[in-house]
Amino acid sequence: MPDFVAANPEYRRWIETVFARQAFMRLIGARLVSIEPGACTIAVDHTADLEQQNGVIHGGVIGALADNAAGAAGGTLQPEGTATVTAEYKINFLAPAIGERIEARGRVLRAGRSLVVCQSEVYARREGRETLSAVALVTLTPSALKGSA
Amino acid sequence: MPDFVAANPEYRRWIETVFARQAFMRLIGARLVSIEPGACTIAVDHTADLEQQNGVIHGGVIGALADNAAGAAGGTLQPEGTATVTAEYKINFLAPAIGERIEARGRVLRAGRSLVVCQSEVYARREGRETLSAVALVTLTPSALKGSA
Amino acid sequence: MPDFVAANPEYRRWIETVFARQAFMRLIGARLVSIEPGACTIAVDHTADLEQQNGVIHGGVIGALADNAAGAAGGTLQPEGTATVTAEYKINFLAPAIGERIEARGRVLRAGRSLVVCQSEVYARREGRETLSAVALVTLTPSALKGSA
Amino acid sequence: MPDFVAANPEYRRWIETVFARQAFMRLIGARLVSIEPGACTIAVDHTADLEQQNGVIHGGVIGALADNAAGAAGGTLQPEGTATVTAEYKINFLAPAIGERIEARGRVLRAGRSLVVCQSEVYARREGRETLSAVALVTLTPSALKGSA
Repeated sequence: MPDFVAANPEYRRWIETVFARQAFMRLIGARLVSIEPGACTIAVDHTADLEQQNGVIHGGVIGALADNAAGAAGGTLQPEGTATVTAEYKINFLAPAIGERIEARGRVLRAGRSLVVCQSEVYARREGRETLSAVALVTLTPSALKGSA
Repeated sequence: MPDFVAANPEYRRWIETVFARQAFMRLIGARLVSIEPGACTIAVDHTADLEQQNGVIHGGVIGALADNAAGAAGGTLQPEGTATVTAEYKINFLAPAIGERIEARGRVLRAGRSLVVCQSEVYARREGRETLSAVALVTLTPSALKGSA
Repeated sequence: MPDFVAANPEYRRWIETVFARQAFMRLIGARLVSIEPGACTIAVDHTADLEQQNGVIHGGVIGALADNAAGAAGGTLQPEGTATVTAEYKINFLAPAIGERIEARGRVLRAGRSLVVCQSEVYARREGRETLSAVALVTLTPSALKGSA
Repeated sequence: MPDFVAANPEYRRWIETVFARQAFMRLIGARLVSIEPGACTIAVDHTADLEQQNGVIHGGVIGALADNAAGAAGGTLQPEGTATVTAEYKINFLAPAIGERIEARGRVLRAGRSLVVCQSEVYARREGRETLSAVALVTLTPSALKGSA
């Protein structure tokens, strides 16, 4: 895994700003857990609102977290005012997301000028034990945040 | 595109039953628009809750709809008591989902015994005009609904 | 499916030029079958060299054809001197590729400036009857052909 | 990364047997480099036959190696007589595969009864230095080898 340096010294604040503007992340109760250059972790607690038909967290939530963790990881390497948008992603579900808390960890595999490729892993934490629930590959493109100076 | 016959004559009611049990679909305001053998359409109206940082519908919502439309399309071909779970999916975002209403149309490409492969297309409808916003390939596995007789 | 116009009036000759420079396509016996603006079909005949362990065409051949048909489809919309390279693709195998001839048909779903998204379908033709063997989503980036003026 | 135990004590010989029956692997000059429970590495040397239009190894070769390394990794956990077939895969190309030798390393992420999910990484080795060239997620299904007792 490569080491990245954030060109923007305020990358943490910048990612928090972009994240705070994502109403959908608020709707599902997602929060930023950690932000490092080229890496980001996002989590939700298990709530009834997020369930699918069998009482586990809906794949749509897992997918959104995996995508967003990757997007934020990629965003840490962008200049101020530039966020990322997702060009595409692919996710494999490995085990039902059973647990009090679901955590998506995104990290940059390659940061190109026009394309940023990330991998996300989603873990379900249950009574202190983690299970790898999903893995995703995500392709991002840098994109100016609307209304950014 | 192949023609499919639903083995379960009550496939519409069955899909509605499974869908109604998905709390997350309720949270995002998703509703079933049409259900045919091997095909299903799901829609949401644009609400502020579903937005990302630039005011368009969040990719996580688009992904969840694409996945769910495929899952329901696959479910129409299952026997009573059997739904589908998603093994994996891949989605390409083609254009920002701008419009009053977002519609995901899933259809089965191949229905095997242990794997069902579907394609979903997500359209944004704006003032009566539709734009293809995303396309997804989805692999499902049949799975008994918990608590089903 | 959108209608495309090729900016380069010599798009057919241009695609043939790029294709002829791909030694690997020669190795597997691939040939261009048709080239239209935003669409391209590539075929191979079944030969023993292309088989996997059970005597059907190897998935690696199917993947290469799906990828290349998409790349050539995207290339038809590029200016002279610019080809495409593949950023990523995803392929679902729907049925074993059994038949005298395997044909991959790529078409452009969206042609952006920095990203071109295509879909490919791979058919196996056996005694005049076609079976859909695989479907792929392919993301391309335009790229100057090395040595092009 | 999980530790796997091969149920079949002859898993190495078994993978070699399946691999030797893949004519296409022979065509591209692929060879098995290492076989461990849940992991497998396959390599090719750079030859002119494997090139695309710009003189680097064709993506079709990279994709085939990534797929096959995953398939062999999954095969190590199958009983004698059972190989794997690929249900789908997705590959991201991170850097051109420039070097004397290309190596694909597959490993199992999750081995279910009906689905096996693997990840492959493809490295280009040039003058002793390795570059990560591609990363893939691969979904396999166990399948009896034709003609196996």
